[in-house]
Amino acid sequence: MKPVVVRNIKRADSNAIGTLAGVGVSTAHEALGRSGLMKPYMRPIYPGARVSGTAVTVLLHPGDNWMMHVAAGEIEPGDIVVAALTSECTDGYFGDLLATSFMARGAKGLIIDAGVRDVKALTEMGFPVWSKCVSAKGTVKATLGSVNIPVVCAGDAVNPGDAIVADDDGVVVVPAEVAGKTAKAAAAREANEGDKRAKLAAGVLGLDMYKMREPLEKAGLRYID
Amino acid sequence: MKPVVVRNIKRADSNAIGTLAGVGVSTAHEALGRSGLMKPYMRPIYPGARVSGTAVTVLLHPGDNWMMHVAAGEIEPGDIVVAALTSECTDGYFGDLLATSFMARGAKGLIIDAGVRDVKALTEMGFPVWSKCVSAKGTVKATLGSVNIPVVCAGDAVNPGDAIVADDDGVVVVPAEVAGKTAKAAAAREANEGDKRAKLAAGVLGLDMYKMREPLEKAGLRYID
Amino acid sequence: MKPVVVRNIKRADSNAIGTLAGVGVSTAHEALGRSGLMKPYMRPIYPGARVSGTAVTVLLHPGDNWMMHVAAGEIEPGDIVVAALTSECTDGYFGDLLATSFMARGAKGLIIDAGVRDVKALTEMGFPVWSKCVSAKGTVKATLGSVNIPVVCAGDAVNPGDAIVADDDGVVVVPAEVAGKTAKAAAAREANEGDKRAKLAAGVLGLDMYKMREPLEKAGLRYID
Amino acid sequence: MKPVVVRNIKRADSNAIGTLAGVGVSTAHEALGRSGLMKPYMRPIYPGARVSGTAVTVLLHPGDNWMMHVAAGEIEPGDIVVAALTSECTDGYFGDLLATSFMARGAKGLIIDAGVRDVKALTEMGFPVWSKCVSAKGTVKATLGSVNIPVVCAGDAVNPGDAIVADDDGVVVVPAEVAGKTAKAAAAREANEGDKRAKLAAGVLGLDMYKMREPLEKAGLRYID
Amino acid sequence: MKPVVVRNIKRADSNAIGTLAGVGVSTAHEALGRSGLMKPYMRPIYPGARVSGTAVTVLLHPGDNWMMHVAAGEIEPGDIVVAALTSECTDGYFGDLLATSFMARGAKGLIIDAGVRDVKALTEMGFPVWSKCVSAKGTVKATLGSVNIPVVCAGDAVNPGDAIVADDDGVVVVPAEVAGKTAKAAAAREANEGDKRAKLAAGVLGLDMYKMREPLEKAGLRYID
Amino acid sequence: MKPVVVRNIKRADSNAIGTLAGVGVSTAHEALGRSGLMKPYMRPIYPGARVSGTAVTVLLHPGDNWMMHVAAGEIEPGDIVVAALTSECTDGYFGDLLATSFMARGAKGLIIDAGVRDVKALTEMGFPVWSKCVSAKGTVKATLGSVNIPVVCAGDAVNPGDAIVADDDGVVVVPAEVAGKTAKAAAAREANEGDKRAKLAAGVLGLDMYKMREPLEKAGLRYID
Repeated sequence: MKPVVVRNIKRADSNAIGTLAGVGVSTAHEALGRSGLMKPYMRPIYPGARVSGTAVTVLLHPGDNWMMHVAAGEIEPGDIVVAALTSECTDGYFGDLLATSFMARGAKGLIIDAGVRDVKALTEMGFPVWSKCVSAKGTVKATLGSVNIPVVCAGDAVNPGDAIVADDDGVVVVPAEVAGKTAKAAAAREANEGDKRAKLAAGVLGLDMYKMREPLEKAGLRYID
Repeated sequence: MKPVVVRNIKRADSNAIGTLAGVGVSTAHEALGRSGLMKPYMRPIYPGARVSGTAVTVLLHPGDNWMMHVAAGEIEPGDIVVAALTSECTDGYFGDLLATSFMARGAKGLIIDAGVRDVKALTEMGFPVWSKCVSAKGTVKATLGSVNIPVVCAGDAVNPGDAIVADDDGVVVVPAEVAGKTAKAAAAREANEGDKRAKLAAGVLGLDMYKMREPLEKAGLRYID
Repeated sequence: MKPVVVRNIKRADSNAIGTLAGVGVSTAHEALGRSGLMKPYMRPIYPGARVSGTAVTVLLHPGDNWMMHVAAGEIEPGDIVVAALTSECTDGYFGDLLATSFMARGAKGLIIDAGVRDVKALTEMGFPVWSKCVSAKGTVKATLGSVNIPVVCAGDAVNPGDAIVADDDGVVVVPAEVAGKTAKAAAAREANEGDKRAKLAAGVLGLDMYKMREPLEKAGLRYID
Repeated sequence: MKPVVVRNIKRADSNAIGTLAGVGVSTAHEALGRSGLMKPYMRPIYPGARVSGTAVTVLLHPGDNWMMHVAAGEIEPGDIVVAALTSECTDGYFGDLLATSFMARGAKGLIIDAGVRDVKALTEMGFPVWSKCVSAKGTVKATLGSVNIPVVCAGDAVNPGDAIVADDDGVVVVPAEVAGKTAKAAAAREANEGDKRAKLAAGVLGLDMYKMREPLEKAGLRYID
Repeated sequence: MKPVVVRNIKRADSNAIGTLAGVGVSTAHEALGRSGLMKPYMRPIYPGARVSGTAVTVLLHPGDNWMMHVAAGEIEPGDIVVAALTSECTDGYFGDLLATSFMARGAKGLIIDAGVRDVKALTEMGFPVWSKCVSAKGTVKATLGSVNIPVVCAGDAVNPGDAIVADDDGVVVVPAEVAGKTAKAAAAREANEGDKRAKLAAGVLGLDMYKMREPLEKAGLRYID
Repeated sequence: MKPVVVRNIKRADSNAIGTLAGVGVSTAHEALGRSGLMKPYMRPIYPGARVSGTAVTVLLHPGDNWMMHVAAGEIEPGDIVVAALTSECTDGYFGDLLATSFMARGAKGLIIDAGVRDVKALTEMGFPVWSKCVSAKGTVKATLGSVNIPVVCAGDAVNPGDAIVADDDGVVVVPAEVAGKTAKAAAAREANEGDKRAKLAAGVLGLDMYKMREPLEKAGLRYID
């Protein structure tokens, strides 16, 4: 693989992205047919953030954050940088200086399958990061990777331009070509929950609301008094 | 093992449970003879919660949360659901809808050796969960497990009706038959700590307060100036 | 190794330590030539704390916290206790009673390659701990270790008296003999960042600010429109 | 928990145990209703061994193998020692001297949720061990545990006298009271496999042999040419 | 994602595949520009095997191996089944019966990001498997996945028909469209190594053979006598 | 830390090293006062090897094996290269070409806190390696580290010239200045074991041979018939 920076990427529809931010990761993931989630080791550096945006991908080598600076040059407002690694690494690839640059370019967050540092400053700046770990370990700038190529980040395939949703539940990737359809399905799912919630709060059991008693009995569940 | 739901379980004494909530996990664990702790990977989804209650156990299969709905039907006020897995899984078995149902039934919390989702909503609802991880990954409803049978959860044996105490230090299981005795021992332990704390705060060393200097010397400890 | 307590240790210069606290872990680590960091699994029990101080080291055996009491006797105001283990252990070696004693002696924090408990109380007391995990598991007092000998803690060599800096980004160890030089380098580094931050905030890319475009092109990076 | 050694335990039926050794871990686990397996991190120190026997349980503290010597005194011919830990530890609790003693007593193997050492000697002696890891780390003899009480080993509840089967696939625990029934079910299962194997070897697909095509289609599986 | 089985896939060129088997995983990975490797936790169940073939992919749900039987129906001689998981699972999805069926269909091996069982029998049959772990844990047949869709297996993107090479060093995926080119580059690389090996065996240092002394000195390396 | 290669190191006494190879890792570790062991994740790439030698240390950056070539130039007959990492990495830093060079220089083995590749070739060449993992992942040659400085490898402090012993039980580091004393203690320990082994093989219990019954009773152990 030759190191390249791909400049013209097709970004997922912005209306869809707005809708997906409204419903959050769990609902978006269900609406996508229970797929697209990154592994659960990806955690936010502070609680409560929820963002959605379009992926600018970057492929990094262990211990080397040179391409993060290249990626910064490709950010458009509304993007989320998704940083993948060629092999596992926990170094701190990103801190408050890069975050200042990313924010100035309009980035809404960073997803990185490695470490991040300056987490207190990032929290104060309100720049959300989902990462594998926190580490102050510095990196070098010696080896080329690529920007805006398909990558695998935290077990999930990501293409440049894909819709990303991230919140306290994790990170989900919605392929750009199904973002509209998924957003619609997610919104419908969400609309449907209020009524269920009210019933459950009133003490109705899921067993009855979802009509599970008969299938459970057929499957052989036995109650012992 | 045939899938069963055991309905009549003997719950630990409620006075003991109240006392145990007062002393917390570390003291309860010590009072139980330094036993009964779940593994330290079990962490609360938000800091500061402390609950105690009686265990309703549920055994789940990987990727399948059907039995959580069955367990909901067995909850009595003051119960804590303890969910064990037949093999390791990080999926998100539990979210805000199930929590609404659990709360309506009087559950005080959930202990689950797997993942949980909707953590922001759960935090706002004030429904505490101790889990192995956070994951938005959805589950199916296809395979039967059991409710209120003895299980192993996070390395600890739990019987239905056992007293559960959970706080920022983790989760401890106190067998129902020794809950009263353990609560008494724990309260005595706790009462004893105020005096020690005052001495230590005044600068008295544990070496002197616990009379350790002689045994340390006998064991061969040498001071080098 | 005979168990010993070394009493006369040479502590790193206090001016240097004050400077290091000001710049934090990431900058101190860079100023030290990108070295001295403990592994990233060492996390603070609550966010936002930053401390610096001089190391009192203690070597512990698995499941045995006897030497923590011995270490308490060696603390001088401004020290940070650094606890290493002879083999991996997650037990809770330290809680609110020991913290009361440590605080009374003037300790500024604890770094422990094992577990800690009573985290809610420690948080309320404002006594910061960086640890491998949280665990309520109690320990025994049966086997001697040593105090103020060279140890390896979380992958990092620590000598008694070394300067320790710990914050949300982790823990860094600055050898006492280079603490002054490192503090100076760190302060210079920090001073230099304000200007960079302003430029980046104004939208200047790191690619231009650091003059990376030419070396990237020479290394073979290709832009594809 | 007071430290005790329980001397009169009821051992699982020896005929059942012989049968279980014949079928191996995977088949025994299936015959038990897909339960009873220890976690997959338990691995044999050399390939190819398969043993079955009755459990002598021992509960150990981290870094302390005193009770292994006590357990040796309770071994009867045909027993397998199952060593559980009060908290996670990787130390080497067992080596060639203890193995010599265990063999002299008639033990058929060791299952330990911790480390083992002298693995080359153990391999040459033909004494099989399933463990969490290999470690030369020595232990002390200072703290009492118990022998022949119920324990949790590698995520599995074990009672003294239970039938243990261990081979290259892992370790399964068959409760003594169902050992006979399970052995019978396992033997039936095994007998049934020869015919299936022949069909599959001849190229018949499981899809047809197990008549899965219709249920797959009903569940919604679509073939795309 | 609707569950589908894609029947017409384009398999990588068989000449290229033969060449890749000759050079092995490390050389193939280098020839591919240092990419395409699965994570190093993927290990062979027995040492010494080396296979290459074309990928038949299958996406499995945790604890459910139904689709392995569907995948068997899609195997053509020379294929290697690559099994990915929708979430992490250690269950034993594959044993000697399925292996008998896979072999009858002409499969050359299995790559599975989960557990495998009957490893002794598989070893005797000479059917190589690279897996995340060994586990006797049985699975159910209840939930549909897909066959021959793009998957992520052990951190690596795999398309149906891609060339797979697996040996003691791990597993590499060579995209079908570059298999020929990669095989050629790998063969050239291999041819080039004999001469180097001879020089190094004669005591010539890599420092001299690769002319590294000057760049090392320029980079600032200092020798201290 | 400036990158340096230290050329004149003081190697541990060769007689001591010969003795240590004879007794192996477990006995050497005990003779050293139960210290000096690397973490148990360090495993040999093939079983049965045992080596001892003097440490040539090298400090590597993640994903960069340039310094391995520099280290090769410092090897003298009887050395073992000990490779430490500045941060965690699983890449394959070492394969058959470097091994050919190391062997030609007289190296007896490699200890590396990272990955290794070409394990089949290394096994056939009989060049033993203890590593964290096996990985085919290639590295770059871009960043300087150091040779023959003190390092921490797999949790253990190593100085250039220290005695290293490695076998199936792991890796132990004996500081050069105590190598002679430790070898003597180890030999004495070993000599003492034959008699014990004979007694245990004859059925004498450790309880009696080590006179443990009285201390166990005093500590409170109770036998229940």
